[in-house]
Amino acid sequence: MKFIDRSSVLPNVLPFLFLASTPVQAVWPAPSKLSTGNSSLLIDKTLGVTYNGGNVRWSSTELYPRRCARKTNENWFLLQLSWTLDYEPSCAPAFSSEEIVTGGVARAMKNILEDNLVPWKLYGRNQLESTEPSTEGQTYVRQLEITQTGTDSTETFKPLAGQVDESYNLTLGTDGKATIQAVSSTGVLRALESFSQLFFKHSQAPYVYTKLAPVEISDKPEYDHRGILFDTSRNFFSLESIYRTIDAMAWNKMNRFHIHVTDSQSWPLEIPAMPELHEKGAYAKGMTYTPENVQAIQAYGIYRGVEVIFEIDSPGHFGSAALSHPEVVSAWQAEPWAKYCAEPPCGQLRLNDPAVDPFLDKLMNDFLPRVSPYSAYFHTGGDEVNLNAYALDPSVNSSDPAVLGPLIQKFVDKQHARVRAAGLVPMVWEEIPANYNVTLGDDVVVQSWLGDAAINDLTAKGHKVISSNYNFWYMDCGRGQWLNFANGAETEQYYPFNDWCTPYKNWRLAYSYDPRANLTAEQAALVIGGEVGAWSETIDDANIDDILWPRSSAAGEVLWSGRIDPATGQNRSQYDAGPRLAEFRERMLARGVLAGPVQMVYCTQGGDPTACRFTTSS
Amino acid sequence: MKFIDRSSVLPNVLPFLFLASTPVQAVWPAPSKLSTGNSSLLIDKTLGVTYNGGNVRWSSTELYPRRCARKTNENWFLLQLSWTLDYEPSCAPAFSSEEIVTGGVARAMKNILEDNLVPWKLYGRNQLESTEPSTEGQTYVRQLEITQTGTDSTETFKPLAGQVDESYNLTLGTDGKATIQAVSSTGVLRALESFSQLFFKHSQAPYVYTKLAPVEISDKPEYDHRGILFDTSRNFFSLESIYRTIDAMAWNKMNRFHIHVTDSQSWPLEIPAMPELHEKGAYAKGMTYTPENVQAIQAYGIYRGVEVIFEIDSPGHFGSAALSHPEVVSAWQAEPWAKYCAEPPCGQLRLNDPAVDPFLDKLMNDFLPRVSPYSAYFHTGGDEVNLNAYALDPSVNSSDPAVLGPLIQKFVDKQHARVRAAGLVPMVWEEIPANYNVTLGDDVVVQSWLGDAAINDLTAKGHKVISSNYNFWYMDCGRGQWLNFANGAETEQYYPFNDWCTPYKNWRLAYSYDPRANLTAEQAALVIGGEVGAWSETIDDANIDDILWPRSSAAGEVLWSGRIDPATGQNRSQYDAGPRLAEFRERMLARGVLAGPVQMVYCTQGGDPTACRFTTSS
Repeated sequence: MKFIDRSSVLPNVLPFLFLASTPVQAVWPAPSKLSTGNSSLLIDKTLGVTYNGGNVRWSSTELYPRRCARKTNENWFLLQLSWTLDYEPSCAPAFSSEEIVTGGVARAMKNILEDNLVPWKLYGRNQLESTEPSTEGQTYVRQLEITQTGTDSTETFKPLAGQVDESYNLTLGTDGKATIQAVSSTGVLRALESFSQLFFKHSQAPYVYTKLAPVEISDKPEYDHRGILFDTSRNFFSLESIYRTIDAMAWNKMNRFHIHVTDSQSWPLEIPAMPELHEKGAYAKGMTYTPENVQAIQAYGIYRGVEVIFEIDSPGHFGSAALSHPEVVSAWQAEPWAKYCAEPPCGQLRLNDPAVDPFLDKLMNDFLPRVSPYSAYFHTGGDEVNLNAYALDPSVNSSDPAVLGPLIQKFVDKQHARVRAAGLVPMVWEEIPANYNVTLGDDVVVQSWLGDAAINDLTAKGHKVISSNYNFWYMDCGRGQWLNFANGAETEQYYPFNDWCTPYKNWRLAYSYDPRANLTAEQAALVIGGEVGAWSETIDDANIDDILWPRSSAAGEVLWSGRIDPATGQNRSQYDAGPRLAEFRERMLARGVLAGPVQMVYCTQGGDPTACRFTTSS
Repeated sequence: MKFIDRSSVLPNVLPFLFLASTPVQAVWPAPSKLSTGNSSLLIDKTLGVTYNGGNVRWSSTELYPRRCARKTNENWFLLQLSWTLDYEPSCAPAFSSEEIVTGGVARAMKNILEDNLVPWKLYGRNQLESTEPSTEGQTYVRQLEITQTGTDSTETFKPLAGQVDESYNLTLGTDGKATIQAVSSTGVLRALESFSQLFFKHSQAPYVYTKLAPVEISDKPEYDHRGILFDTSRNFFSLESIYRTIDAMAWNKMNRFHIHVTDSQSWPLEIPAMPELHEKGAYAKGMTYTPENVQAIQAYGIYRGVEVIFEIDSPGHFGSAALSHPEVVSAWQAEPWAKYCAEPPCGQLRLNDPAVDPFLDKLMNDFLPRVSPYSAYFHTGGDEVNLNAYALDPSVNSSDPAVLGPLIQKFVDKQHARVRAAGLVPMVWEEIPANYNVTLGDDVVVQSWLGDAAINDLTAKGHKVISSNYNFWYMDCGRGQWLNFANGAETEQYYPFNDWCTPYKNWRLAYSYDPRANLTAEQAALVIGGEVGAWSETIDDANIDDILWPRSSAAGEVLWSGRIDPATGQNRSQYDAGPRLAEFRERMLARGVLAGPVQMVYCTQGGDPTACRFTTSS
């Protein structure tokens, strides 16, 4: 495979090529191979589903994990938003392949039969009815035969990159017989998602149809790590928002939910061995994740093929621990903050204090054993360490890189040893290897946010990398400063109050990113994936959907399908992606995620992506 | 009053001045005069309310206008979002002052007792309980005595700028007696909103309290026209979104809801005399506003002190009429569109065709009599007329300004005559007087979007102006292009796909705008207000709340309170506004509008707006 620089793509494909395309045929992200016909089928709840020959008894109210009694943290603190929590998370997850497949079938059928869209926005004005199949005398999809050719292992449910085969084949015949073949139950989940996207609600309820039979799909991901980074420290997020985001990720075939769970602003993570951390560090009582919540989030992800990766960032971004353990933190709320950290409040873990190791031992001994049954990774952070903060650290009293480098090496070695001892693989932010000459283990996955040059350097040194290139995939960017400016000269100087990473990452921009651009094949193979970032300075339960979707879907297609379309060898085109994304957005909306619109209805109704193409007046 | 340029403000007020401020004392927008104490009072549903001596029998389920049978346009087309429509709009509005005041009391009490917030985000971490008043032995607010000193007239409910006195006085004594005095029922509504913002939910339900007694407020608006522009043509909006937006406007003391109801993309307005317009021009069956809907929207606004102003834009932005009346439109879907219009699809009303006057007579004779009982204004549009489109107009066949100018004058004269004949005052976009040398009547209000120089020119010529300066108040800006770009050179050239009016208008930017900046006092007096714009290419029911709020609140305070704080003669400060806006955002959220967060909780909990101030590392 050849990785093509954005600057070397071939000329524009001519607009008229698109005029004959079927307007409604989105499977998002684009499968490796997809062929469709134009025969119609109906589907209803009488569909018979088998899994390796046995009947699947699915129910649209049994979406897994199962409900059970649990300690709740609901109280008057939580926002009274209108999201509905469909069911309580499990307190005793048991990951049987059969249960996972059954849950996947149930969710697919709920999405097909209940939470589906009448696609009036996707056909010409007032053309919908004339495009819909007759509801009389139609063949029904009567059978879905699921075959899993491999056997799931422990690693299937908490895989390292590459440890689970997510490929699948899907067929839907004009005779109403559908088949899914996959190596793993995760592959079955991916197939069920594609299956669900073939169907639409009929304007005459309760009929549901596809017009695309026969369908053949052969599909597998381009990248192993396809994630979203969620920041629960700067603003707290309800379990509802977390579950809703995991659901939407699964629809996008994304598979890594990275929770940046603590930071200098707040400590919402309950550590039973050290309750003072959340009692003093959370924003408020109840704005915490209990051990039961943590397990429920992990299980919720596993049932959807989404691995939850927790990050306790250190040594930077550690200020909120000072509220209960000032003895391990330096530069807490130091001012002027810009000298000591990236944003207020400052606070870094001390680097050479004898109190730190017992503190981290206790913390990690509590948390990591609760992580390792459900995840292969633990993210140790390491971004934006500010050396000035160590001039205020009584155990160091220096900001000299020559002094600090070896201390950081020692710190990282110890912390990674803790992670490995718990059976987990460490992740770090790129500054650790890039800025402090730190040697890392070969197992470590490095998360880069600084872009192409940084990725080139990291992969040249042999690091496994995931990219969150802020120029493309930081979804909090481009919405303006959240810091207060003084009147007068300061306002004059910083008007119009742009943030550090402006502009806004429109879906077109997110879609134009190729994490493997400009790398040798050897380097490119080290880029195992990427993550969309959503740092939450100005994001909370109220707007997280509109921030993430559909823009993360654009990144999701790059990660699942690749930036390059193998059929053409060119970058994927906005002309192709635009209508499909607009369709997929309607699907996400119908399923309860408040994704923003891709284009106005005039553009989506045209059946012609060039109707709303950019032009110039000349 | 002196109007001060943004570039001439006094130096920064020192941060320490803010440390002693009470964190929870927002009334947004800031009243002209506000004094508060630190005594606590509770309030509950036993509050007795009188209006001019008579008892007000309010109920939190009787919010007005009253429910009644109506023709519905609900069907499977409408998005299944989770908004709740509290009640059906009235089909027979009767605007008695008493009913309007009673509805205002009911909504204020619902907001105080039911849809209120526990202000944990506004106090230090874990400090909330220690700040709350005891619920034992407290004085209750027992009486609210409302006195309207003037008598409402027809103009009170459909005022021209300046025709209604919105001023009010509000007191709340430590003895639990509150008074409101206002000249008009509209002033009473403004006072009730301020009253509602004095209260918070106690963490011990069901108690509700204020800690600010005694309170004295004396308040009146700086500008008469304080609006939001809503675009229902590019994307359709449900009635729920419209009602929710009107509610939020009233909380912000905004008073003009401008519905840009038709455009080239779709014609959602039902005109019973010409049903073909919506039957062929709406995006889909049911995506329309029936006469009953129109009346209900108007009545909904009047009950909240919000005048609904409809705009049927012409001669530009008229394309969708071509779907039913091609004989009156030129350049419909002309390509390349950039030559003939501002965005696809093109389409302008023909300028000299004998079919046009009968068409407009019929249209206006149907619609205007339904507008005039409920509004003083009708907006005739006039923006972005593209002269090239008239080269394709068989009745003109020219793009020569010398030919077109007189024709546009004639067109405007006729259209404005229709408006005046219906008892309405015409509004126009600024291009009509600015670009075509058109003479307008003295009554006409000109809407400017091009900014300070344009406003200077318009007011120098004596026009009454409202400003929607796109550099500050176009809320659709800065989110990237919605047009599709071809791969290759085009993508290279236009990467990162910024839109024409980037950057995003952060609340700080919206707040920094002074519509009267750099004008003489005489010119400034002609600027009667402004409107926030929300053109809907990428906005619909799913994200309208996050687009409008809290950013429109920043504009709302500029318009109600003025950009200049009369107490200091300086521009209002982000240090002062930030915490109050963060608090008001929580209030809007508690009332059911998904306003985005202003800052992370760390910043709002500090009680110190300088905790999240901009600094540099030097």
